[in-house]
Amino acid sequence: MDQLKPTSANSCPLTPLTFLERAATVYNDCTSIVYNETTFTWTQTNRRCLKVASSLVRLGICRGDVVSVLAFNVPAMYELQFAVPMSGAVLNNLNTRLDARTISVMLRHCESKMLFVDTHLSVIALDAVSRFPPGIRRPVVLLISDHSDKFGENLTGSIDSLQNSTVNGVDIFTTYEDLVEKGDPDFDWVRPISEHDAITLNYTSGTTSSPKGVVHSHRAIFIITFDSLIDWSIPKNPVYLWTLPMFHSNGWSFTWGMAAVGGTNICLQKFEADDVFAAVNRHNVTHMCGAPVVLNMIANSPNAKPLKNSVHFLTGGAPPPAAVVLRTESLGFIVSHGYGMTEVAGVVVSCAWKEKWNKMPVKDRARLKARQGVRTLGLTDVNVLDTKSGLSVKRDGLTQGEIVLKGACLMLGYLKDPRGTAQCMREDGWLYTGDVGVIHPDGYIEIKDRSKDIIITGGENVSSVEVESVLYSNPVVHEAAVVAHPDKFWGETPCAFVSLIGKASLNDIIMFCRERLPHYMVPKIVVFMEELPKTATGKIMKSKLRDIANNMSKRTGMSKM
Amino acid sequence: MDQLKPTSANSCPLTPLTFLERAATVYNDCTSIVYNETTFTWTQTNRRCLKVASSLVRLGICRGDVVSVLAFNVPAMYELQFAVPMSGAVLNNLNTRLDARTISVMLRHCESKMLFVDTHLSVIALDAVSRFPPGIRRPVVLLISDHSDKFGENLTGSIDSLQNSTVNGVDIFTTYEDLVEKGDPDFDWVRPISEHDAITLNYTSGTTSSPKGVVHSHRAIFIITFDSLIDWSIPKNPVYLWTLPMFHSNGWSFTWGMAAVGGTNICLQKFEADDVFAAVNRHNVTHMCGAPVVLNMIANSPNAKPLKNSVHFLTGGAPPPAAVVLRTESLGFIVSHGYGMTEVAGVVVSCAWKEKWNKMPVKDRARLKARQGVRTLGLTDVNVLDTKSGLSVKRDGLTQGEIVLKGACLMLGYLKDPRGTAQCMREDGWLYTGDVGVIHPDGYIEIKDRSKDIIITGGENVSSVEVESVLYSNPVVHEAAVVAHPDKFWGETPCAFVSLIGKASLNDIIMFCRERLPHYMVPKIVVFMEELPKTATGKIMKSKLRDIANNMSKRTGMSKM
Repeated sequence: MDQLKPTSANSCPLTPLTFLERAATVYNDCTSIVYNETTFTWTQTNRRCLKVASSLVRLGICRGDVVSVLAFNVPAMYELQFAVPMSGAVLNNLNTRLDARTISVMLRHCESKMLFVDTHLSVIALDAVSRFPPGIRRPVVLLISDHSDKFGENLTGSIDSLQNSTVNGVDIFTTYEDLVEKGDPDFDWVRPISEHDAITLNYTSGTTSSPKGVVHSHRAIFIITFDSLIDWSIPKNPVYLWTLPMFHSNGWSFTWGMAAVGGTNICLQKFEADDVFAAVNRHNVTHMCGAPVVLNMIANSPNAKPLKNSVHFLTGGAPPPAAVVLRTESLGFIVSHGYGMTEVAGVVVSCAWKEKWNKMPVKDRARLKARQGVRTLGLTDVNVLDTKSGLSVKRDGLTQGEIVLKGACLMLGYLKDPRGTAQCMREDGWLYTGDVGVIHPDGYIEIKDRSKDIIITGGENVSSVEVESVLYSNPVVHEAAVVAHPDKFWGETPCAFVSLIGKASLNDIIMFCRERLPHYMVPKIVVFMEELPKTATGKIMKSKLRDIANNMSKRTGMSKM
Repeated sequence: MDQLKPTSANSCPLTPLTFLERAATVYNDCTSIVYNETTFTWTQTNRRCLKVASSLVRLGICRGDVVSVLAFNVPAMYELQFAVPMSGAVLNNLNTRLDARTISVMLRHCESKMLFVDTHLSVIALDAVSRFPPGIRRPVVLLISDHSDKFGENLTGSIDSLQNSTVNGVDIFTTYEDLVEKGDPDFDWVRPISEHDAITLNYTSGTTSSPKGVVHSHRAIFIITFDSLIDWSIPKNPVYLWTLPMFHSNGWSFTWGMAAVGGTNICLQKFEADDVFAAVNRHNVTHMCGAPVVLNMIANSPNAKPLKNSVHFLTGGAPPPAAVVLRTESLGFIVSHGYGMTEVAGVVVSCAWKEKWNKMPVKDRARLKARQGVRTLGLTDVNVLDTKSGLSVKRDGLTQGEIVLKGACLMLGYLKDPRGTAQCMREDGWLYTGDVGVIHPDGYIEIKDRSKDIIITGGENVSSVEVESVLYSNPVVHEAAVVAHPDKFWGETPCAFVSLIGKASLNDIIMFCRERLPHYMVPKIVVFMEELPKTATGKIMKSKLRDIANNMSKRTGMSKM
């Protein structure tokens, strides 16, 4: 038995890139992409990707080079998820909500050779590149515009003038469509030598620390893509609405997943809750993803109306408040809840739903659905470890510990950061998420907080998520976030930041919480805001709220900001 | 980028065994197995498997030992697909249709340490073990009977008397249920050290050569299981009827697949076409698999009647005759067609169906469905190579070559047969299937024949499959097989063996073929048989027919056998 070793026939590298050529055969004339009036078939998408990949090689891109993309959810953005790695390069999607300084830092950190820029983002991109100090090699800049988007008409002229020009001292090389036109559709794309070769580089949004460059292998992306298709039971030919930014962990790997199952990608340049309802009806959308904040915006849209056909909505990135789940489900969305992070390339823990739960009262259903759940099939293991002993916590739904993961979809590590990598992926074989959770008696895991978000008041741990969940269940509350406020007596006390869609006084909010929470968990301070500050990926920026809380006295609690 | 290497957190071995503990959490009180009046839940199946695995270790089974099973599709057979590898051993399923001599050869070849035997097969198994020459270590024999099967009542007494007894000089150690009873449900099951560790050993049925021991790794089985779930779009909680023997490539890996999606396994001891209709209606079956011969038996069952709910039927192992597909689909089966072999652990090429084909006339649909199709997502590549040049054949649907495969689900190799392994998996990175096929202009592959089944008449290649397909389209033909008959003038001529369900003369059959085939392809000899001889896995035994054809003169063509 021991004499049988892997051979070249059975150890060929796993990679999601093989999904595309298959899609061109199986789903040849099925629609691959719809964007305003532009549509492509899978045959066309395959040819376009091969052409772009061949052009990249012709322009000197080599195996292992980093190629960056700063774009909205437009067709070129989708194609680049294949075309860049098919040239042998590592794909670096950049967050479109970042500022020029941060983008500049990232481009320099990864020594990006090339930067594709959505024309609508050209100002910030050119600013970012122009900040490169002299002597540091700048990435070649290429413009993306398909001349068909809603806002594009005014830009057509400006693109032609930008091409082969110099702006802010930055040379603009050519356009994306030029690479398509001049490319070779019969290009023999560059296959990975090892399945552990890098395919993507994503900078984390950094809610708790400075951005880190997460590198994933072809193997990891192959596994997470397969895993997510099975976990969400995605059928053939789904119609997928891109409400989740593709730069966000490569759209939780559904970029490659849609090629696997011959899906139709409905592209949206910008997310507007109203556009969602129009797109769902126009294209018979079946699936979409987004953070709870997206779910919230849909639920609270003034034009929200019940859907004709139900739509599967996968949410993650933060626990969805039960009230938001209830509101969205009443409109006809079937909400699934998953948990993941940039470091694991997608959803690796999900709230696998049980038939019998459908018979429970709606509130109980929503509470169960807000739990993160169980590991997906592709993840080898998940656990919640006591920080001191390193042992599993009791399965009592109460004892807190840090959530840890192991599996084939985990990142290779952080780029140029061996210390950060070793701190996250430790010698005991676990990736430490920094998220605090519990294991319920039925084996389902629930996040109680990010390590930093735990509020310790009078020696008691208060989960800010738990308090937020109660605040969200109040119909007048639009958004809520709870952080620690320093207190001489208690050490810390919960401080709530809320925005409203109705009217409520400080007292109303406090009394609402008192009826539903232990006294020590009730916010001692409530700050009303027009809108809560958010990170570039749409997460509520707790670090900023924490700064505000640290700098205010208790009496400012009633002030509006 | 190059400094990022796999770590213990992201390179943990892929294995399908992790699906079971997850099923016990997610699908805890869902039904896992139904067998006559016996039912189990996933919690119970997980516990029973852990108990058996712990008992195996207690009995001295070590990592890498071979444990054999000779059983019908009973619950213990299903459980052993998990329990054996969870003890660290390699699972060797044996074909229940083999004779004692062949089983004895296999047991000795793999040095099996233990043999689980269905009580209904105890005579043949004990005969097999008693044939071991003195001095060769015999496997420990354990009996499987759940005391609940239809035929089991008479055996209960005999089992109790067999346990701890000696029959034919073979010691019978204990029963399967005894291992369950004495096992530890909290057993920490034995995980593979490397994902390339062996998990299964299956002897090929050997239609063209002597049986070979196909060894698969944990990685390969993980990949094929994921792949088959996606390729067949299996939803959560399917109801799967075990018409395909589990010993046949581990039920094309759906043994593990059902644990992945929380399916209900409807076990059947024996396949009877009538039982299928009863089971489908009783249990609301959604999915089932089987060779075309099974499809044929269902279609021709006198009690066949349209199904209440449609059932997905995956067929493979041989091209399904178009006429059989049509008949079965008219009853409410949704037939999918896949291609695989023991060496690849399941279906790796499948006839991915296109929406637009539904609009075609039924005959065209059936013809398209009889093609093997395209590679599944989990297979890295498939090709049809010209035997002389080694290059891809033209995509014209006419030029024949050998079908070759590469991918992670391919076997590690043949046990103790480095020459056979190297002949099959060659240095060019391909596994050579021995099947002759063409590539159609749309990229779909179609098998024309096994290499040995090509008939060369007057310098023209005749595909026996093509002639058989025409014969099957005749409503009076029940079974058909075509082989070469030696001919002094033509070299070879096609010789047909058929069994009928109606009346037809030799002339009727010949004329039917003449109207549908080029003259040189029409059988020159037609032999009528009550039933065609079959291999242990239910494939028509062409080698035997070839022997008959070689030994008869042309004039015997009209005789009935």
